[in-house]
Amino acid sequence: MTTIDGTDEQLPFDVFARNCPSRETLGHVTGRWGALTLGALREDTLRFNELRRRVEGVSEKMLSQTLHALERDGLVHREAQPTNPPRVDYRLTPLGRDVTGRLMGLIELLEERMPEVLAARVRYDSGR
Amino acid sequence: MTTIDGTDEQLPFDVFARNCPSRETLGHVTGRWGALTLGALREDTLRFNELRRRVEGVSEKMLSQTLHALERDGLVHREAQPTNPPRVDYRLTPLGRDVTGRLMGLIELLEERMPEVLAARVRYDSGR
Repeated sequence: MTTIDGTDEQLPFDVFARNCPSRETLGHVTGRWGALTLGALREDTLRFNELRRRVEGVSEKMLSQTLHALERDGLVHREAQPTNPPRVDYRLTPLGRDVTGRLMGLIELLEERMPEVLAARVRYDSGR
Repeated sequence: MTTIDGTDEQLPFDVFARNCPSRETLGHVTGRWGALTLGALREDTLRFNELRRRVEGVSEKMLSQTLHALERDGLVHREAQPTNPPRVDYRLTPLGRDVTGRLMGLIELLEERMPEVLAARVRYDSGR
C-alpha cells in the first residue's frame, strides 16, 4: 500500500534509500527549525510573531521557509483571518499532530538524558 | 536533577532555549546523516565501510564527522579491533539504543504516512 510510485511493485518508502521522498520529509520534520516549529505548535494555534518568539533564535526568513515546507508536506495548516489588519494563524494538521507526538517523544528523552550526554563529552574530550 | 549547570536552580534542559546544549544534541541525532547512521546501527555492529554502504549517499568525510559527534555525545561506541589490517567497529551504546528507538518510531510513522504527505504536496502545488 505504501508505495513511492503507486505501481504494482509496492516498493515501500525507505529513508535509507537515496531518492526516497521520505528522506526529504524527515529533513523538514527534524531539521533544527522544523522540529522546534512543530514542537511550538503542539499545544496552540499561533501567529507568525508568536511562533518567532517561541522558537528562540530563528530569523524571520528561516521561519517563513520552514512554515512553507511544513505546510506543503501537510503537517501545518495556515489560515488567513479576515481581520483588519489581516492575521495569519498556524496550527498542526491531524497528520502533523501524530508526527509531532513522536518527535516530542524523542525530544523529551534527550532532554531527560542530557546529563549522560554531557558526562560522555567530558570523557571523550579528556582523551577517552 | 536534570540541570544545565548543576546549580541549585535546577534549570531543566530545554531544546526551545537558544543556548541549551540539548539543542546541539538534537541536531546530531536528527541531522540527516546522524539520523540515518543511528538507524543503520540499530540492529548491527558495523564497520565504517559497511555503514557507508547502508547510509546511501553519505560521503566518507561526512560519515566520519557524524560518527565523531555521535561518539562524543555517548550515543555510539567505537572499538578498534587488534587485527591486521586494523578494523574499527561501531555500535550503539545503551543510551544510543534508547534514543534510536524513539527516532525509529518517528521514521516509521513518516514512512507509513508518506502517501498523505505526497497528496498534500499535490494540493499545495496546484494552488491550494
